[in-house]
Amino acid sequence: MRRPTIRPALMLSSALVLGSAFSALAEMPEDVTHFTLDNGLEAVVIEDDRAPVVVQMVWYKIGAADEVPGKSGIAHYLEHLMFKGTDKLAPGELSKTVTANGGSDNAFTSWDYTAYFQRIASDRLPLVMGMEADRMANLKISDDDWQAERQVVLAERAQRIDSDPAALFNEEMNAIVFDNHPYSRPIIGWKDEIADLTREDAIDWYDTHYSPNEAILVIAGDVTPEEARRLAEENYGAIPAKGEAEPRMRPQEPTKQTERRISMTDPRVAQPRMIRSVLAPERNAGDQEKAAALTVLADLLGGSTQTSVLGRKLMLTGKALWVGASYDGLSLDPTEFTLSLVPPQGSDPAKAEAALDEAIATFLKDGVDEADLERVKTRIRAAQVYAKDSAHARAYDYGQGLATGLTVEDVNDWPDILSAVTADDVMTAAREVLGEGGGVTGWLMPEPPEEPMAKSAPPKPQTPEVQG
Amino acid sequence: MRRPTIRPALMLSSALVLGSAFSALAEMPEDVTHFTLDNGLEAVVIEDDRAPVVVQMVWYKIGAADEVPGKSGIAHYLEHLMFKGTDKLAPGELSKTVTANGGSDNAFTSWDYTAYFQRIASDRLPLVMGMEADRMANLKISDDDWQAERQVVLAERAQRIDSDPAALFNEEMNAIVFDNHPYSRPIIGWKDEIADLTREDAIDWYDTHYSPNEAILVIAGDVTPEEARRLAEENYGAIPAKGEAEPRMRPQEPTKQTERRISMTDPRVAQPRMIRSVLAPERNAGDQEKAAALTVLADLLGGSTQTSVLGRKLMLTGKALWVGASYDGLSLDPTEFTLSLVPPQGSDPAKAEAALDEAIATFLKDGVDEADLERVKTRIRAAQVYAKDSAHARAYDYGQGLATGLTVEDVNDWPDILSAVTADDVMTAAREVLGEGGGVTGWLMPEPPEEPMAKSAPPKPQTPEVQG
Repeated sequence: MRRPTIRPALMLSSALVLGSAFSALAEMPEDVTHFTLDNGLEAVVIEDDRAPVVVQMVWYKIGAADEVPGKSGIAHYLEHLMFKGTDKLAPGELSKTVTANGGSDNAFTSWDYTAYFQRIASDRLPLVMGMEADRMANLKISDDDWQAERQVVLAERAQRIDSDPAALFNEEMNAIVFDNHPYSRPIIGWKDEIADLTREDAIDWYDTHYSPNEAILVIAGDVTPEEARRLAEENYGAIPAKGEAEPRMRPQEPTKQTERRISMTDPRVAQPRMIRSVLAPERNAGDQEKAAALTVLADLLGGSTQTSVLGRKLMLTGKALWVGASYDGLSLDPTEFTLSLVPPQGSDPAKAEAALDEAIATFLKDGVDEADLERVKTRIRAAQVYAKDSAHARAYDYGQGLATGLTVEDVNDWPDILSAVTADDVMTAAREVLGEGGGVTGWLMPEPPEEPMAKSAPPKPQTPEVQG
Repeated sequence: MRRPTIRPALMLSSALVLGSAFSALAEMPEDVTHFTLDNGLEAVVIEDDRAPVVVQMVWYKIGAADEVPGKSGIAHYLEHLMFKGTDKLAPGELSKTVTANGGSDNAFTSWDYTAYFQRIASDRLPLVMGMEADRMANLKISDDDWQAERQVVLAERAQRIDSDPAALFNEEMNAIVFDNHPYSRPIIGWKDEIADLTREDAIDWYDTHYSPNEAILVIAGDVTPEEARRLAEENYGAIPAKGEAEPRMRPQEPTKQTERRISMTDPRVAQPRMIRSVLAPERNAGDQEKAAALTVLADLLGGSTQTSVLGRKLMLTGKALWVGASYDGLSLDPTEFTLSLVPPQGSDPAKAEAALDEAIATFLKDGVDEADLERVKTRIRAAQVYAKDSAHARAYDYGQGLATGLTVEDVNDWPDILSAVTADDVMTAAREVLGEGGGVTGWLMPEPPEEPMAKSAPPKPQTPEVQG
């Protein structure tokens, strides 16, 4: 995924994202069932009876990168409007009903998908499935609601993006990382374009894309596969598909020849921070090896303060206050591999960047230390075991995987593929994303003269936008 | 216009572009006639009987910035296919016929328009109008032609862009100057997208956009207005409009907070060159004053080696080998104001850039020298008088103006508006485009270690792509 827009409660640590929720067997896990209804709705059921709760997720294979130019924000705006009711449900009634039944619900939008979920006592699964199915088929966007909700979205943008220099900076980074691919677009939309979205735009988006054959249903928790399937048939089976699901074709990035730098100064920034982004391949169905090598590479370079390659070379030596590496291949189209850096307080940022460049060059020359690689892979395996404890995280893995073009088998295979990554694989991947120039280097700087620097936590260079 | 894609023969010097072809009267010039046919075709006739020749231009209000994402290059590809014939005209016959009659013809595509013209003996005007009208209504794209022509376009791209580091550099500059507006897109198209264009794409483009009510006919030369109108009615009058002409709405640029730098090194580059681009308003109908001030500003800063502000401060002092400023407001949407710079041979490029920054800062502090301003305005007036000698250039002014949203009156008014620009206007405009940070600075560099630098002509920072 590329910086998904998820609620904090849903944010998986990078370790959890690394590990899928399975032992290293490339077979369907015993507790997982997969089927497709006649109307094209693909469903995954994960049985987990350790607690009497259940999570329902519906993932629509449509997101901000599928928007028409000039209508940015429509995917996220429609996500908001999905809470506005149907003939049976008054505006807000779905969430109120979930809460009244002791559950919680939310939704999130990314470039590749828009998803809705409820977590609730397992005996209320029929209730939430009935409501979710109802709004898949029968959403009503009334004249009263659409303008008010647009204001809500604009206020959300004002608060989360326009008043946050780091968010504005990330937005512009993103825009120049991608020249042609719509990943260049902010998920929440450009302000002026949000302001121009209409009820007709929303209805058109819903009518075109909210269809069972463009959705994935994931049920995880205390429910048998038989019961889940029966409920899926009962609630979703009668919803007709809106035509054929079209292949998701998007403009792709051309090969780039230039190196790019971007900088922004803002008095609200406490200390300088750098992010460097290069394009990297994503996980593809039946072809996840390169993405696995990049996943291991990111962890090896920046996964741990004390033991990662860059942590040892830069943080432990005082050359950087913080350094990180990040990659997540759950993306429909090619994504980013990023490095991030916070210079030591009061130091010259250029010196810290040079030290990072030197550390990377040394790594490319010296190659992977096998003990490092084994340690990282052990951590990844451990994370997989821990992740199995969370039915919610497992539901997320399948939902996000299927929404970004993978199969259930790809999701199942991922741990094995990660385990099989060799030092050669890592170095080949490293040379591809770090060996040549290119990419975008961004610096977010305090306004000079610099304010006294605040003590601050390590930055999150790819802060997910929180939406819902 | 923004770096139009015109044949060298059509390239107007910046002085010619500055001056429209009229004396400074905001009335319809005596020799110009303007009318619209019932089917929506707008026509401008410029009578000029000094030579027995005539130019016919048809400008379609459709260009690369109107393309659908993923289909870049379709506007230019269709321009090529327009030479493929009709039921009456065999492929290539139009051009052959023009040549056989002693004339010349060509076509060009830009972001905002696609235009076709012939220059021929005035008694052959009916012949070329008949053929141009025929392909407006009856283009045939045969199964034999479309793939071969796509190869021609790919070869054109390979030659003009992919084998030219300056062109590749300009292409990427452009992509990061515009985050959201489709001016970010290369007119000729991204290579992989050209390769995927189909016959259906071309037919759809033609059927949707090649309509008399989205076109402008300009006839300039040895023809009376009455005769031109009669011929226009006779040839174009019966072509039905394809529906209502839709307003040309495009995604607009968000406000930017960052400064951006881009660099590229290539062994084929003889010496370093810099271009800096900031967004600037364009000429708008009834609102051309800011664009006039920017036009004067560009000429004042960089219009002449010996006497321009930057020429005196940088070139005459040896701080730069070449420096220029460029602006052209004939654009449908906001455009660019650019500065360009070639450092002295063998010098540190950063030093030359710093000298440019200092020269700009001094100019912003000291303001306009009134004698400079008068000299520039005199040169502009002189250029207008000279330009009147070229019926072709006058046709170009009206065609391009009307194709980018201006009225005939706006084109007529332009010389007066330029003449009325004051020192205050220039400085207000200068502060807007040069006063704050922001913008994109690009450096195109020789591969280090630098080759011995070749003696070379001043660069053309906004080299028009030649297409046709």
